[in-house]
Amino acid sequence: MVTKLEAQWIVGFTDGEGCFHIAINKNELMKLGYQVLPEFTIVQHKRDVQILHALKHYFGTGVIRQNNKNVMCYRVRNQETLRTLIVPFFEKHPLKTKKQLDFLKFRRVLLMMERNEHLKESGLIKIREIKSK
Amino acid sequence: MVTKLEAQWIVGFTDGEGCFHIAINKNELMKLGYQVLPEFTIVQHKRDVQILHALKHYFGTGVIRQNNKNVMCYRVRNQETLRTLIVPFFEKHPLKTKKQLDFLKFRRVLLMMERNEHLKESGLIKIREIKSK
Repeated sequence: MVTKLEAQWIVGFTDGEGCFHIAINKNELMKLGYQVLPEFTIVQHKRDVQILHALKHYFGTGVIRQNNKNVMCYRVRNQETLRTLIVPFFEKHPLKTKKQLDFLKFRRVLLMMERNEHLKESGLIKIREIKSK
Repeated sequence: MVTKLEAQWIVGFTDGEGCFHIAINKNELMKLGYQVLPEFTIVQHKRDVQILHALKHYFGTGVIRQNNKNVMCYRVRNQETLRTLIVPFFEKHPLKTKKQLDFLKFRRVLLMMERNEHLKESGLIKIREIKSK
């Protein structure tokens, strides 16, 4: 049976363990040579993989991967899903730690990507700026 | 203004960041030479010290200490407070990760200590057993 989660539990757990990450990876297939890759992740020791399955069940999306021998990760990378599901969840239920600032930067970059700004040099520079702030 | 917390947020945050620890420290003042010291702690980077104050405000007890340069800690050590406040909170709002097992061991030791069993050799051995399981 999947553990039942409540929204505030997810917020508290994400305040502790979650990560709103914007990777900028070298990728020769891209015109600018770089790919912008936002992802929402929660990492746990494998003994608590059931809680990652509960999160996947709650959001109805994402994948669970093994990071290394003892560490598992719940991950959402699909931009459409991030924009329409993950971001609205944390807009409705705001984080309470300074991780909220990471979330706001994450949301800003996702909105830029929706307008394809990350494919222009000026947009890529802007995203680097947002990341480093 | 103190950040307002909800019970489920605290459970989620504790599942991520909390610790139910039973220390057994050498102490020559004790008849058996050891002191049993249960403590509930939540550690955070100092940028999020406000959240530790919010926890202290919610429970109405505990202290906030600096662990090192950048790390702050919310801590409850008073046994009476642990028994009458912290334990009942997590009985009413169970943890969802395997940290629940730590909590159950913690509660068991606190009940033993209420009966002064930690002051007898057999009790101290039992507590060591519970800890190591």
